[in-house]
Amino acid sequence: MNRRMTTKHTQSETGDPLLLTPGPLTTSASVKQAMVHDWGSRDAEFLRINRMVLDKIVELAGGQGTHVTVPVQGSGTFAVEAMITSFVPKSGKLLVLINGAYGQRALKIAQIAGRATASLETPEDTPPDLARLDNMLVDDTAISHVFAVHCETTSGILNPIAEVAEIVARHGRRLLVDSMSAFGAIEIDARKIRYDALAASSNKCLEGVPGLGFVICRNEALAECKGNATTLVLDLFDQAEAFARTGQYRFTPPIHVIVALGRAIEEHEAEGGVVGRGRRYRENAGVLIDGMRAMGFQTLLPDRLQAPIIVTFHMPTDPRFVFQTFYDALKDRGYVIYPGKLTVADSFRIGCIGRLYPQHMVSALLAVREVLDEMRVSNGGPALAAE
Amino acid sequence: MNRRMTTKHTQSETGDPLLLTPGPLTTSASVKQAMVHDWGSRDAEFLRINRMVLDKIVELAGGQGTHVTVPVQGSGTFAVEAMITSFVPKSGKLLVLINGAYGQRALKIAQIAGRATASLETPEDTPPDLARLDNMLVDDTAISHVFAVHCETTSGILNPIAEVAEIVARHGRRLLVDSMSAFGAIEIDARKIRYDALAASSNKCLEGVPGLGFVICRNEALAECKGNATTLVLDLFDQAEAFARTGQYRFTPPIHVIVALGRAIEEHEAEGGVVGRGRRYRENAGVLIDGMRAMGFQTLLPDRLQAPIIVTFHMPTDPRFVFQTFYDALKDRGYVIYPGKLTVADSFRIGCIGRLYPQHMVSALLAVREVLDEMRVSNGGPALAAE
Ligand SMILES: Cc1ncc(COP(=O)(O)O)c(C=O)c1O
Ligand SMILES: Cc1ncc(COP(=O)(O)O)c(C=O)c1O
Repeated sequence: MNRRMTTKHTQSETGDPLLLTPGPLTTSASVKQAMVHDWGSRDAEFLRINRMVLDKIVELAGGQGTHVTVPVQGSGTFAVEAMITSFVPKSGKLLVLINGAYGQRALKIAQIAGRATASLETPEDTPPDLARLDNMLVDDTAISHVFAVHCETTSGILNPIAEVAEIVARHGRRLLVDSMSAFGAIEIDARKIRYDALAASSNKCLEGVPGLGFVICRNEALAECKGNATTLVLDLFDQAEAFARTGQYRFTPPIHVIVALGRAIEEHEAEGGVVGRGRRYRENAGVLIDGMRAMGFQTLLPDRLQAPIIVTFHMPTDPRFVFQTFYDALKDRGYVIYPGKLTVADSFRIGCIGRLYPQHMVSALLAVREVLDEMRVSNGGPALAAE
Repeated sequence: MNRRMTTKHTQSETGDPLLLTPGPLTTSASVKQAMVHDWGSRDAEFLRINRMVLDKIVELAGGQGTHVTVPVQGSGTFAVEAMITSFVPKSGKLLVLINGAYGQRALKIAQIAGRATASLETPEDTPPDLARLDNMLVDDTAISHVFAVHCETTSGILNPIAEVAEIVARHGRRLLVDSMSAFGAIEIDARKIRYDALAASSNKCLEGVPGLGFVICRNEALAECKGNATTLVLDLFDQAEAFARTGQYRFTPPIHVIVALGRAIEEHEAEGGVVGRGRRYRENAGVLIDGMRAMGFQTLLPDRLQAPIIVTFHMPTDPRFVFQTFYDALKDRGYVIYPGKLTVADSFRIGCIGRLYPQHMVSALLAVREVLDEMRVSNGGPALAAE
């Protein structure tokens, strides 16, 4: 070992390990600090921040005047379930495009809710088959809605939402999008891409803390949703209606989470919005992928399918590589990576989102190099030159 | 006006107004400060805190070995809806005891979920009619479950849960309790009071921040709940099963909220648990009620029905009393009170829970006195003696 191997890498503003994960992720100190207050749920300042959050989210989506943000207390899956059960009527049928765990989960949600379903599945490293989608919409006229995942976080693949939306619209069907891990960093403009609803959450590319999901709803589509939901808390029509009438949540909001999100959205704007945030994440992903490849790691996906959100790497074949040891040694150095979720390949994932900059990716790579050397793993790549 | 009327009253540790509300409420500075970190959702420290939180909640309920805490991301209503839809099977029938908005809400939840329902309603200032409950359980053998609210926050009434539980058990039916605003401060011991499930949340008497509900479930009853729920996210059986198997949440937890709750539970324990917390709230309520009565205000409830959680006061009849002016002037002085929710009487509410001590109630009373004088309201009580 050379001396650099004992470097203490932790670099977050609060001394916490950096989260190279798909979220919850590293947030700025100011976002966390925003939570160190008490507000009542009818507090004017809180209501102002909440209004700003909901309005800014619609703006980020390019939906001013046509769309509305309906927040859902809870995690992202709560927003996805609210979206599916509020938008697909009991007489509807949902076609779910699946190439990972989040598509699977959406199918399960629709089935539990007793909606008729169909699915179109491709392997985790393969985008949906657009020709088959087209055929299915011709053949099965019962399909009323199509569900697609924007960035399927399972692999990190960027699904072709614009093409999917175009096909769905051409057949006069409705699109529901899970943009959980992409919204705020990968453009999806409601003026160009037609959808009825799009779900995301506080703790991904907007860089807030977890606890709030939201659904961006096309006003005209939402207006048709009365009575679809079979729950009180996940009824987006009812939630939106209460907001329009009272400006308030029906049920106690996670105030601190929302105030943190307000601060996070201000910082998002200061960074240049979706364009600026996306640029930084692309830089992070570029540094990461180049550096990992230089050490002999292989990405699951070819670059043209890779979203700059989270990258799946194949496990090295060297038997000296033990993932838990690798994970723990990186954590000791202040970097938290993520296990794989693939069913098809032995893999792990490294996230590029959160309050991380290219220099953090560079030091994370240095830590990976150190740990590989410590584990004496030969991974086909060049060893770190001891300067 | 004398000089004391210009006193600046704000006394919270973070300079925020004191929340004399039913929650979200004033929390300690250390509870809020606990949130100024980042954790991954699989982080060992976070998982340890989460485990502690769930275990301590069962202990507070007297349910060690017999009960389990199942957390639900979202607000308290999410926990109530999860409880009703997970515990009452599709073939079951729920009798809801109603004497306020939260009983009404539970009935609505059961109806939306398509469960058969019955209700037993009494006025907002009147406990459930136990003789009628007994009769209804004899007459309607389809009733499988009874739902009762512990402290009905609408009025602040303390419902006779022990008596209700005894009747329900005697008839071999199952009890579901909404103890949202009482749990942690008013004893409800699972060794003495038999229930299948009890719902509460992070931001009431445990003095955490909002964002997590939870349901304390009797193990044997929970084991029968597989397949009852018609949602994925609100399925308590599935949530519990995943915890037992993996120690983790199925979906991203509101980590910061949970860590704050962990800290809040430590502070609850340091205060002497349910007994100590309850004692302080009773002191707060005593100071408040005595002081308000001395100024001529009348409580909705007689003392024997009053829970030491939130107190409903009739509006003064003097036409110079304008509630919004009163509210705003108190807020300016650093005290946030709560509008009434009663359907039967014009009223407002003042909460006794959160990080408030008797001396805060004393200064709140002083502020009330100042504002009444400023408004020139004659309320039957003696004016503040200018010392
Ligand atoms: C694409 C996608 N959908 C849904 C979810 C679920 O979100 P949550 O874990 O907040 O429930 C995630 C979480 O990573 C996701 O990446
Ligand atoms: C008795 C009772 N039940 C349910 C609720 C609902 O909780 P939440 O507002 O967190 O959804 C409350 C909230 O005040 C309550 O007091």
